[in-house]
Amino acid sequence: MEIQRIVRDLVTTKRDSWLAAKSLRVVEDASGALSVALDPIGCKPGDFVITMGGTAARLATDDRRITTDLTIGGIIDHWSVDDW
Amino acid sequence: MEIQRIVRDLVTTKRDSWLAAKSLRVVEDASGALSVALDPIGCKPGDFVITMGGTAARLATDDRRITTDLTIGGIIDHWSVDDW
Amino acid sequence: MEIQRIVRDLVTTKRDSWLAAKSLRVVEDASGALSVALDPIGCKPGDFVITMGGTAARLATDDRRITTDLTIGGIIDHWSVDDW
Amino acid sequence: MEIQRIVRDLVTTKRDSWLAAKSLRVVEDASGALSVALDPIGCKPGDFVITMGGTAARLATDDRRITTDLTIGGIIDHWSVDDW
Amino acid sequence: MEIQRIVRDLVTTKRDSWLAAKSLRVVEDASGALSVALDPIGCKPGDFVITMGGTAARLATDDRRITTDLTIGGIIDHWSVDDW
Repeated sequence: MEIQRIVRDLVTTKRDSWLAAKSLRVVEDASGALSVALDPIGCKPGDFVITMGGTAARLATDDRRITTDLTIGGIIDHWSVDDW
Repeated sequence: MEIQRIVRDLVTTKRDSWLAAKSLRVVEDASGALSVALDPIGCKPGDFVITMGGTAARLATDDRRITTDLTIGGIIDHWSVDDW
Repeated sequence: MEIQRIVRDLVTTKRDSWLAAKSLRVVEDASGALSVALDPIGCKPGDFVITMGGTAARLATDDRRITTDLTIGGIIDHWSVDDW
Repeated sequence: MEIQRIVRDLVTTKRDSWLAAKSLRVVEDASGALSVALDPIGCKPGDFVITMGGTAARLATDDRRITTDLTIGGIIDHWSVDDW
Repeated sequence: MEIQRIVRDLVTTKRDSWLAAKSLRVVEDASGALSVALDPIGCKPGDFVITMGGTAARLATDDRRITTDLTIGGIIDHWSVDDW
């Protein structure tokens, strides 16, 4: 799993049907690189989270057919930019 | 998922049969690195999109046997080079 | 598999239910980049370990539905920072 | 999928039995990094190709048990070093 | 598949049970970065090999439940540091 920080929500049009009703967040890693993660938990900008990729990303949703390759698995307690 | 921008179409010969009738696009990431993504939505050059990899890429097509490892999942609203 | 070193434990709230009762460790690689791995063995900070990713990470737990994409597979004997 | 260029054939001994009768090519990416891809199409040095990884690499062969993680999916028309 | 060179054997304690009786090797890539690969063939330090990752790594062993994400698939003939 990777440690990432929530940047903001992501709004898309013409979205794949399996992702249509899901919350997507822009996340950044320690180097500032951006990715997009599905959020089944309810995170807010600034939260440090762990994300999982691959098949684990789909298992971490409520429906394995959901077409995510990156899903938020938990909010990290006691983490700051200095720990990164 | 990754945030990428559509560069152009990709034309191939001797293509794998599962990909034969599919639209492929050259996409670039924030660093300018190029990849090729299957486009089930209909994107045009300059669109910012989210792409998913791995098994999720196949689930995002209409036939799981399609041999893609990168598929476009949606067009992003309100995104510009400055957000990247 | 990758060679990584245990940095510390990771405490999360609102964790995905499959990960809820599992031990998670922050690990670092030779370049100092941090990841999070599930620990089914019982490691302590400073241990050098091998980690496996992808589906192998789930197979290395006692329940394949566990949503990990990185799991510790063993503690390395006779390894030091100089070997890295 | 990635855009890569055929460098040369690869000859191995003691090869895994599933790969034994298959053509393998050394391919390079835009940065010059080398990988090895299974070639079910018949490419020659200098051809620009698209390659797929992961499970898609196995689906792009005629037998899903073949132990490839990178397979050539098509030869690109109208591509040159300048496009890279 | 990647081109890597055998560095040395790897000895671990408290190893995952599926890996317990298997030979593991430390391998390096062209940049000198180290990984750990399962060796079903019998390689010696200095051999240049191809390695496969993901599910292909498990298929290249004699038991798909083995928790490897990197397996040696063959020894390369006629390869030297200059080819790298």
